[in-house]
Amino acid sequence: MSSSGGPVDRAILEDLAAANRILVDQGVFDAAGHVSLRHPGHAERFLMSRGLAPQMVTADDIMEFDLDANAIDARGRNGFIERYIHAEIFRARRDVMAVVHSHSPAVIAFGLVGTPMRAMYHNAAFLAAGAPVFDIRDKFGTTDIVINTAAKGAALADVLSDKSVALLRAHGMVAVGPSLPVAVFRAIFTVASGKIQHQAQALGGPIAALDAEEGRIADIVNVQTVGRAWDAWKQRVT
Amino acid sequence: MSSSGGPVDRAILEDLAAANRILVDQGVFDAAGHVSLRHPGHAERFLMSRGLAPQMVTADDIMEFDLDANAIDARGRNGFIERYIHAEIFRARRDVMAVVHSHSPAVIAFGLVGTPMRAMYHNAAFLAAGAPVFDIRDKFGTTDIVINTAAKGAALADVLSDKSVALLRAHGMVAVGPSLPVAVFRAIFTVASGKIQHQAQALGGPIAALDAEEGRIADIVNVQTVGRAWDAWKQRVT
Amino acid sequence: MSSSGGPVDRAILEDLAAANRILVDQGVFDAAGHVSLRHPGHAERFLMSRGLAPQMVTADDIMEFDLDANAIDARGRNGFIERYIHAEIFRARRDVMAVVHSHSPAVIAFGLVGTPMRAMYHNAAFLAAGAPVFDIRDKFGTTDIVINTAAKGAALADVLSDKSVALLRAHGMVAVGPSLPVAVFRAIFTVASGKIQHQAQALGGPIAALDAEEGRIADIVNVQTVGRAWDAWKQRVT
Amino acid sequence: MSSSGGPVDRAILEDLAAANRILVDQGVFDAAGHVSLRHPGHAERFLMSRGLAPQMVTADDIMEFDLDANAIDARGRNGFIERYIHAEIFRARRDVMAVVHSHSPAVIAFGLVGTPMRAMYHNAAFLAAGAPVFDIRDKFGTTDIVINTAAKGAALADVLSDKSVALLRAHGMVAVGPSLPVAVFRAIFTVASGKIQHQAQALGGPIAALDAEEGRIADIVNVQTVGRAWDAWKQRVT
Repeated sequence: MSSSGGPVDRAILEDLAAANRILVDQGVFDAAGHVSLRHPGHAERFLMSRGLAPQMVTADDIMEFDLDANAIDARGRNGFIERYIHAEIFRARRDVMAVVHSHSPAVIAFGLVGTPMRAMYHNAAFLAAGAPVFDIRDKFGTTDIVINTAAKGAALADVLSDKSVALLRAHGMVAVGPSLPVAVFRAIFTVASGKIQHQAQALGGPIAALDAEEGRIADIVNVQTVGRAWDAWKQRVT
Repeated sequence: MSSSGGPVDRAILEDLAAANRILVDQGVFDAAGHVSLRHPGHAERFLMSRGLAPQMVTADDIMEFDLDANAIDARGRNGFIERYIHAEIFRARRDVMAVVHSHSPAVIAFGLVGTPMRAMYHNAAFLAAGAPVFDIRDKFGTTDIVINTAAKGAALADVLSDKSVALLRAHGMVAVGPSLPVAVFRAIFTVASGKIQHQAQALGGPIAALDAEEGRIADIVNVQTVGRAWDAWKQRVT
Repeated sequence: MSSSGGPVDRAILEDLAAANRILVDQGVFDAAGHVSLRHPGHAERFLMSRGLAPQMVTADDIMEFDLDANAIDARGRNGFIERYIHAEIFRARRDVMAVVHSHSPAVIAFGLVGTPMRAMYHNAAFLAAGAPVFDIRDKFGTTDIVINTAAKGAALADVLSDKSVALLRAHGMVAVGPSLPVAVFRAIFTVASGKIQHQAQALGGPIAALDAEEGRIADIVNVQTVGRAWDAWKQRVT
Repeated sequence: MSSSGGPVDRAILEDLAAANRILVDQGVFDAAGHVSLRHPGHAERFLMSRGLAPQMVTADDIMEFDLDANAIDARGRNGFIERYIHAEIFRARRDVMAVVHSHSPAVIAFGLVGTPMRAMYHNAAFLAAGAPVFDIRDKFGTTDIVINTAAKGAALADVLSDKSVALLRAHGMVAVGPSLPVAVFRAIFTVASGKIQHQAQALGGPIAALDAEEGRIADIVNVQTVGRAWDAWKQRVT
């Protein structure tokens, strides 16, 4: 059994729990969805709620896992079956500190048809680099869609590559970031940009979305100023 | 007059009443809609609110009916005129333990045009088997649309066949399940999937919806894990 | 100056005030919109709020008007400038007991293009008879769109004819009924049906809307059962 | 350092703070967005919140700036980086007393494609004069989209010209008016009209929007009657 990465500040656990409730409040999560944080003291561990509807998560529900998705000191609590999504992304992407997984309706359609998501505005600047689609059928054939093994998690991480967002066909999305607020920000604005793109596509004609370089430099501003939005989101759920 | 199936645990009546309020809270019901449960002690009886807006239903409003839609011990309470929907589905489908009927706007359009509903994501896996459309004109000609006789209820049950969801042209839908939480889950995600399908159709091109086998096995997971969503939905209305 | 139609029961004034707040709560009114009731004791008088945002209306804000839209005993209160809509419909339609006027976004588009509104489901059965479009330019040329004279109100009433709903180009709609709850019901389900029709049109192909005879007989059921919905709507705003 | 325009009535500061919260409540602002007011006693000064999520703004957060976007008596508070939008519009447009800047999703698509916004109804009458699109690439090439210099603010003011609304490609919009309530009204109904236009475009065919002269005279009514809507909006956030 793996050892713990060590005790974590209560404020960090509170923030991770709040992130769950923020993503419900902002319409990214429904009664499902989960968000994780790499352990601040140990790069091979991560923190994530036990299996629980996100609106209910409090700091006491946060569990610690190793990168094989094994719980450290489970004390009878059960993790989400899809914790492999988080484990394998943390394994593959050392720059990623937080991972969000949701079934947000506004993005599902983009994972089902041949229309790529693009960055409709500065808030979704990270989409300018592209949002690849993971189709579980490609490697695993007919499944129940659930990312319930390390192999499936790793295949998703492989499709995600160095991007900020990947869509999961007929399932949902993942959004990642260099901090918890940035991952939450990206999840929220992937959904917002998706809604706008539905409208832009319907109007027809070329869409003057952010290009790759605009997106790269606009995202820097977002990362720098995310605290203001984070504070506002958190105020609504605490 | 039929005899009662016997007393029912208060907790079960509370859950059935909560299901009415959950379906309002989740946007499936408006000021109308009803949900029923087969009597846990008698397969020829079912439980359902008296005629009342679903947001107002409490355990004391639950009545018992036989499969001819006759009230057992009405005590002056009036049932919904469309209780025949429930009676005839319970008669035809011994595997069904709960039935939801709603007028959810997001599904109506699919009952009016030639576009079949499909399963846009794992949560709507049950739609991969198809969602047939019941057009009351086929057997009954010009009517007021209301399912107000056993014959109409039976015709609807016949169209539903072994599926989980049927659409009613220019009227609404029914969703059924092997338990109350599953029927509620299916009603909620029929609406959610319908909204996504509107977006996917608008984007254009082939839609990589769940195929029949993916749907079948993904639905097994949904049925196993429905408790987590049910608890979250219930917390919001109690 | 016209004489009063006589005192009105407080409960009726409370219901008319509640109708204003219901139509806000149900998304038919924004910060504007008004609803009127023919005086229960005098067919040539009607009751309507003073000029005030509908969310704020209480029984004390209800004024009485004659069919020339003159206030009876104004006591310093100012009526809505568009009270001519109500006066002229009450004059032209002796079967109408209540009138709603709103700027509901979901119906505006149907007044701007050549697509007629149809009855997408039984709740909107009254639309099966058609919803004519009033274009103020036809008789009055370039205006500020406001129905601020008896002549403009009468022209609108003329277009409404014997229907339950008329659209006002680039402005909004009127819905009428044989009672206050029915007029409110029709306003709410005109909006709901309009939203569904946007979805049905986007899916494409023929739309199996209610035909005229289905609509006529389905509307009878709606009028008979409106009390259940009215009670639910009222509970939310009182 | 510029001198202050002088003390401002507390009620005016309260109204400006309320405008921030109104625009959140009405769905124009998300966790970002700002609104400013020209100093009532000095045409070369304006008032605007320190950098803070708009839902949180109170009168104590209002700062004073000169038209070079320099803070007067900052006392450690930081202004929004995009205050140049406001400064340069106040400089270029002496008729403008208030400026709103938002990232409202419903308008973004119109800034990305070749479809001009038009006035779908009388509430959006000011759009009948046109809503030009500012593309920051035209003068500044590849940027992070942020209006963070006087030159960028001036270029935007130049595109806005004498109109009430301008769209910012892949960014958002500005709405201006001769008073704070009018600027807020225009921001709200730009969003509302944008949503309706998406529906009207989807229905297809010519759109009988307000023409320029209808818009001009309908807007006069809006400006005269804005107080009623303002009171209703304010009541909801205070």
